[in-house]
Amino acid sequence: MNDNNPLYIDEFFNDGGVFMGAKEKSENCTVGLYGVTYDGTTSFRPGTRFGPSAIREVSNGIETFCPQLNMDLEDLFFCDLGSLKIPTGAPEPIVEAVKNITHKLLNSNMKPLLLGGEHSITSGAVAATATFYSDLILIQLDAHADLREEWLGNKHSHACAMRRCLEVLPSKTLYQVAIRSGTKQEFEEINNQNRLVLHNSGKSASDLNRKLQQHREQPIYLTVDLDWFDPSVMPGTGTPEPGGFFWNDFASIVEVLRNYNLVAADIVELSPLLDHSGISSVLAAKVTRSLLMLLSQNS
Amino acid sequence: MNDNNPLYIDEFFNDGGVFMGAKEKSENCTVGLYGVTYDGTTSFRPGTRFGPSAIREVSNGIETFCPQLNMDLEDLFFCDLGSLKIPTGAPEPIVEAVKNITHKLLNSNMKPLLLGGEHSITSGAVAATATFYSDLILIQLDAHADLREEWLGNKHSHACAMRRCLEVLPSKTLYQVAIRSGTKQEFEEINNQNRLVLHNSGKSASDLNRKLQQHREQPIYLTVDLDWFDPSVMPGTGTPEPGGFFWNDFASIVEVLRNYNLVAADIVELSPLLDHSGISSVLAAKVTRSLLMLLSQNS
Amino acid sequence: MNDNNPLYIDEFFNDGGVFMGAKEKSENCTVGLYGVTYDGTTSFRPGTRFGPSAIREVSNGIETFCPQLNMDLEDLFFCDLGSLKIPTGAPEPIVEAVKNITHKLLNSNMKPLLLGGEHSITSGAVAATATFYSDLILIQLDAHADLREEWLGNKHSHACAMRRCLEVLPSKTLYQVAIRSGTKQEFEEINNQNRLVLHNSGKSASDLNRKLQQHREQPIYLTVDLDWFDPSVMPGTGTPEPGGFFWNDFASIVEVLRNYNLVAADIVELSPLLDHSGISSVLAAKVTRSLLMLLSQNS
Amino acid sequence: MNDNNPLYIDEFFNDGGVFMGAKEKSENCTVGLYGVTYDGTTSFRPGTRFGPSAIREVSNGIETFCPQLNMDLEDLFFCDLGSLKIPTGAPEPIVEAVKNITHKLLNSNMKPLLLGGEHSITSGAVAATATFYSDLILIQLDAHADLREEWLGNKHSHACAMRRCLEVLPSKTLYQVAIRSGTKQEFEEINNQNRLVLHNSGKSASDLNRKLQQHREQPIYLTVDLDWFDPSVMPGTGTPEPGGFFWNDFASIVEVLRNYNLVAADIVELSPLLDHSGISSVLAAKVTRSLLMLLSQNS
Amino acid sequence: MNDNNPLYIDEFFNDGGVFMGAKEKSENCTVGLYGVTYDGTTSFRPGTRFGPSAIREVSNGIETFCPQLNMDLEDLFFCDLGSLKIPTGAPEPIVEAVKNITHKLLNSNMKPLLLGGEHSITSGAVAATATFYSDLILIQLDAHADLREEWLGNKHSHACAMRRCLEVLPSKTLYQVAIRSGTKQEFEEINNQNRLVLHNSGKSASDLNRKLQQHREQPIYLTVDLDWFDPSVMPGTGTPEPGGFFWNDFASIVEVLRNYNLVAADIVELSPLLDHSGISSVLAAKVTRSLLMLLSQNS
Amino acid sequence: MNDNNPLYIDEFFNDGGVFMGAKEKSENCTVGLYGVTYDGTTSFRPGTRFGPSAIREVSNGIETFCPQLNMDLEDLFFCDLGSLKIPTGAPEPIVEAVKNITHKLLNSNMKPLLLGGEHSITSGAVAATATFYSDLILIQLDAHADLREEWLGNKHSHACAMRRCLEVLPSKTLYQVAIRSGTKQEFEEINNQNRLVLHNSGKSASDLNRKLQQHREQPIYLTVDLDWFDPSVMPGTGTPEPGGFFWNDFASIVEVLRNYNLVAADIVELSPLLDHSGISSVLAAKVTRSLLMLLSQNS
Repeated sequence: MNDNNPLYIDEFFNDGGVFMGAKEKSENCTVGLYGVTYDGTTSFRPGTRFGPSAIREVSNGIETFCPQLNMDLEDLFFCDLGSLKIPTGAPEPIVEAVKNITHKLLNSNMKPLLLGGEHSITSGAVAATATFYSDLILIQLDAHADLREEWLGNKHSHACAMRRCLEVLPSKTLYQVAIRSGTKQEFEEINNQNRLVLHNSGKSASDLNRKLQQHREQPIYLTVDLDWFDPSVMPGTGTPEPGGFFWNDFASIVEVLRNYNLVAADIVELSPLLDHSGISSVLAAKVTRSLLMLLSQNS
Repeated sequence: MNDNNPLYIDEFFNDGGVFMGAKEKSENCTVGLYGVTYDGTTSFRPGTRFGPSAIREVSNGIETFCPQLNMDLEDLFFCDLGSLKIPTGAPEPIVEAVKNITHKLLNSNMKPLLLGGEHSITSGAVAATATFYSDLILIQLDAHADLREEWLGNKHSHACAMRRCLEVLPSKTLYQVAIRSGTKQEFEEINNQNRLVLHNSGKSASDLNRKLQQHREQPIYLTVDLDWFDPSVMPGTGTPEPGGFFWNDFASIVEVLRNYNLVAADIVELSPLLDHSGISSVLAAKVTRSLLMLLSQNS
Repeated sequence: MNDNNPLYIDEFFNDGGVFMGAKEKSENCTVGLYGVTYDGTTSFRPGTRFGPSAIREVSNGIETFCPQLNMDLEDLFFCDLGSLKIPTGAPEPIVEAVKNITHKLLNSNMKPLLLGGEHSITSGAVAATATFYSDLILIQLDAHADLREEWLGNKHSHACAMRRCLEVLPSKTLYQVAIRSGTKQEFEEINNQNRLVLHNSGKSASDLNRKLQQHREQPIYLTVDLDWFDPSVMPGTGTPEPGGFFWNDFASIVEVLRNYNLVAADIVELSPLLDHSGISSVLAAKVTRSLLMLLSQNS
Repeated sequence: MNDNNPLYIDEFFNDGGVFMGAKEKSENCTVGLYGVTYDGTTSFRPGTRFGPSAIREVSNGIETFCPQLNMDLEDLFFCDLGSLKIPTGAPEPIVEAVKNITHKLLNSNMKPLLLGGEHSITSGAVAATATFYSDLILIQLDAHADLREEWLGNKHSHACAMRRCLEVLPSKTLYQVAIRSGTKQEFEEINNQNRLVLHNSGKSASDLNRKLQQHREQPIYLTVDLDWFDPSVMPGTGTPEPGGFFWNDFASIVEVLRNYNLVAADIVELSPLLDHSGISSVLAAKVTRSLLMLLSQNS
Repeated sequence: MNDNNPLYIDEFFNDGGVFMGAKEKSENCTVGLYGVTYDGTTSFRPGTRFGPSAIREVSNGIETFCPQLNMDLEDLFFCDLGSLKIPTGAPEPIVEAVKNITHKLLNSNMKPLLLGGEHSITSGAVAATATFYSDLILIQLDAHADLREEWLGNKHSHACAMRRCLEVLPSKTLYQVAIRSGTKQEFEEINNQNRLVLHNSGKSASDLNRKLQQHREQPIYLTVDLDWFDPSVMPGTGTPEPGGFFWNDFASIVEVLRNYNLVAADIVELSPLLDHSGISSVLAAKVTRSLLMLLSQNS
Repeated sequence: MNDNNPLYIDEFFNDGGVFMGAKEKSENCTVGLYGVTYDGTTSFRPGTRFGPSAIREVSNGIETFCPQLNMDLEDLFFCDLGSLKIPTGAPEPIVEAVKNITHKLLNSNMKPLLLGGEHSITSGAVAATATFYSDLILIQLDAHADLREEWLGNKHSHACAMRRCLEVLPSKTLYQVAIRSGTKQEFEEINNQNRLVLHNSGKSASDLNRKLQQHREQPIYLTVDLDWFDPSVMPGTGTPEPGGFFWNDFASIVEVLRNYNLVAADIVELSPLLDHSGISSVLAAKVTRSLLMLLSQNS
């Protein structure tokens, strides 16, 4: 971030590159992109801390123009603030730091888009966003339910991400799109709470659309755990789960969301060390492009 | 295998880890999982000998609960016996060793699930199973016909696996699901014998179901050559063949087979050296989980 | 090429292996395969110069028989001439060399099949082919529009490949199959010119068939930029673009083209350095097998 | 660990394989090997949590006999307890758990050999050992000084490992062998305290021998941060530092230490995700073999 | 480069990160670091265009303090200008652009340090430097002689780098340190011209020192082709040549050069695509640290 | 091999490329290079079957001129016959085929140079050579003693290579250069038989020279198991053993052997699947260049 704004200069560092098309100054920007390079609770294969820099690096390999949304990043007002300065070790201070900086951005009229890092960072951003939008609802794209109360001795493990989010979400409204892995208890809870959004591979996302119609005016936080995608298109993630989704499936979600009010989002669990060909990073960059556009359209 | 049962202790070795959820003792188990680390006839790219240990290693990265079958590995009685002690070199002694140990397991009322290794091991297990179930039929998921009489000077090459199986299968009933590679002669034989099961990508497996209805009471041996899957989801195999299948396709096969009598199975041709991101091993582990459940349901 | 034909011996070199099933002499051959190992304008990730040798190397891992077309490479008359001797550096001399050698092949009644290398080589081959077939039309499988006038200071950049082809194509007839990435201007041109061929994933290619019906007698040049395929099945390419196509999609294109008059083709942008598992090279080899058959059928 | 000893069964888990030559029961063993799969504070590239399982897996690729020490692992009494059950996240609970289990082993007359995991685990083991041997001295093989008071907000970061060890080491005697990276302040402290052991590449380790002569009767804890080795022989580590050491250098250290009283040791910072050819894991396994022998010789 | 200096802003782009310790403004800086991402003539394995960004990315993995030179990057005045904007394709425009920007830097009293990119860029920088320092001499660390008149049709191939440099070097004084690969003719020329600097592995560089004594006051340009290092420590280069050198060998060269007048330098031929573990990039970053210090000491 | 010589055409196949500088016809050649792509008994990590093609492929990355021996491959008369047609599976038929073809070459006055494949092929070549030269002696560069009587149930395992060679070597004279891994029994035998050649890293090989002086007129077979080299320079081998040797060490062996009568040789155990950067293949190609020159000098 080549910005002289004293608000941000102390809280971010440059961990490599800038997302393509970002404005050089944060002034007048309506969307603020930033990385959170935390992977301390990862239970299987680590490395998501390198997610933000990998996404920025490959972003120049795709175009700024999106034919689906007919928008061009060059026409938007978003900035890339760099990555949040955080300690290593326990997750609690990171969740707190994410909460604080997200609050600060929203205060400055910037919609936040976080690049993880692991999924445990989401609850900090949801907590901050919910203080601005009390009727906020949460949509989760993910392979895993993430509803454990605790995992490997840690309440803020990435396996508990949605459990923690529900605690800080006043509306208690969570939609979990086509979750395909969890414990028996997690699936029972999802079904009992009617949270599961059905999704067949292809271009329509009708169940999501149907569920969202009762929330037409409500602000939405979208969390994209990249392992929602099939391992074949997203090998670079720590806990790949066979049977996932493809770009067209994501595009159909975007098609629905462009008619709703997205106010904040995150993209988590990219692990570049496991992505030898780089296709996972490119997919993450294209997802980032779509979300930058969705976040910009109502600003 | 932490077992004091003198029946097994001399025939297996520990080549790394234990499949998640396996019981610590073989006593009372109805399914016995074991590895066969042989890849001596592999014609293209070797390394399937590391298949069993790779599958065990990543098994902890998926859940023990399967939402499709609504079963949990923790509730089943299966053991992981380790991998069979075998010599290197020629395939004949390995096929014989596989035959003997499979026979011993069936004698102990354990249904066998073999993790390969290359496909040439299958005929040993089919031979032993057919002595217990004289009306046994064989279902093959595979990219390749594997019906060669001989290949590179070897009758027990993995390219001859089904030819060898037919020789030891009294019923001569083989169904080959959606084979997509072979010689002209192999395809002619498949068609003449009406062995080919048609399969369109997606969630139904109606042709398999239709063909199996005439075998409702017969015991089934299922051999899964992992190269049946598309190379994008299964890059870690020696002879990848474009145009393969995805998890949902396998799930539809499982959906059919849960209504039939599966008595033995194998999962072969995983080559971890070619699986840099590990997604092939994870897919193989999830296939293993499904088959453990199918084998357990009628026990 | 083990050929004593003085026409070719000075213009090609052996960069590793021979495509499976190729005849040992060029005499009587109706199709001539050759590599063009150029990647000098690649904007993102280089390495396509190794494409031809990688395709040849893995070709032995698939069968010579194609069940879709019911043809066998052993029955065809094609030769593998090796790879064209070219300088490094600027693209202009390479385009010229490609043009000359393509002309020479057509003069000898051999249909050319080029293995790239990067996409900038196509305009040389199209130019030569159009001098033989003045009503030649061009079909492009590609993720990218490639219609830039200039890119990174280079008129012959691979990002300008179709712009250059249009300049040397008298018919000005170009069909671009399911392009999914480009600038706003490129998409406007494509739509204005009615060049875009719609394609839904699956086994039909009806829009292509419909468009081609007005060109039933015209000779066709097919250029296959391998990044048309999804990055999951084709990770080994320099500018992967999510949302691509699968083998069955290509097979449906082949199904259409077998009814038309293919006279020349190329397969470009394979980058083996990015293809750790080798699945991209195998896919490229299978595409090569299909095109060898299409080119042979009317000879 | 195939052991029924109730002392250990709850504190360890099997994360893959057993080190070659380990006894099946802990009874009568004088050395206890165990893994600590923690990498939560790693500042650069993570993955050391997979160190213990990688070392065990490749151990079968080397011999049990060591020609330098003329000893055979088969003749020793050591067991492989598996890996310590630990939470993810903050380092403090892990250091505490390491301290407790190390204490328990020493109480059972087993000398501990820890396989990391990151360097921050060392202070727990040193603390426990120092309660048994009050005159314990510490020898560090490492590329880095590790004397920071705090790093990235964490007192137990691996960059602070020796600072933390000094706090729990009554003798305050630390020898740092050929440290080659650190801050100006760290080098000043090392020099002021006369802690640096000079080491020329080759087969002699005379400076270490000279320094140890004043500690002839004292018990020694040896911590081997594998990045002491040159990155060419040890690419699989998170913070490689050019200009390191080779096997013969390590052998010369062993040659010295065989004349002293080694009572505990650890081997840390192997990161298998970065070790594509596996040579780092094999080197770590050979280091493990040497230390098992040194720890066994006076038992 | 976060600089408002209009001199540079149009000529460089940010291809990822900043070298650790660089000043944020170019004002008052005495050394200017910049990348040249050109690899268009590479004859064997490409990818050096990613060299500059890889070096910057890993620079944070080493310390700013150098124990050999007892200097800290934090105390120096150098800036990282980003990478030069260049076209793809032919080498001539790149050599020209390098010449122009190097001239501009020297005019601004900044000593240039170029990060390649391939070796063909050196002649542009040498040409510019020689216009400032007419008695400039050139020292080359390299595996290859690089004295070909032309290679693969290209006078500016990296195999001709030193031939082109000699043409623009008025002093004609070139020292080639321990070249180990070349044609018979190249070796004859080197010997006839007494250019070869003998070098035994280890810490002395006495032959270089002896040869330089006759040039005590002359300005020196140092070009470091990283393939001078042994392939084991520098696998990430396009034409690795066994029998190379190690860090200590480079340190002994530094030891000599600190007594001479280094005025410009480059570090070329790092190919990150071939450097899976990253050790080559780290070595290149440490070489960069040393040269930044040598260039700063007399400023 | 583009040769019409009916002697060879049926026994070899082209598995990719030709070694640089080879003559196009076998006529008049005094050295015959050929591959043996067998790895069926490999006990740890397979893949040596791809050794010959990898060596040929990278051979163009080094020069034909050798500064040490002051010879140029272009001036020699050697041919590259391709790779021997062999079955998969058991080793006995391969050893027999190697014996036969080696005999045929020697009969045609061509000195054989075999590229493996695994070490078990050596005894076939030694057997054939010893029938031509009854006083043949054998020199082994290797990390491992390879003197086992049997390994994993196989008398022809690569772990038994030297045991098998001794059986077919009338002189019983074997020198084992700096073996560093084996069982206690193997080391005892080596020492009792005074077979061990001591070797200190560096440029002298005085012990070998001393031992060979009593064999001044005797023909020599040299077998180079590439794992003799250090794993850092030769990561691409199945059983890497730390503490190995470097290029300069090999060069000192060459320096000795140029004064003796080398009549046949092999280079085995290169495993390209484990050689991600390609440095192992390049080293093997440079070793091949040296041996081609040694074999040619007395012809």
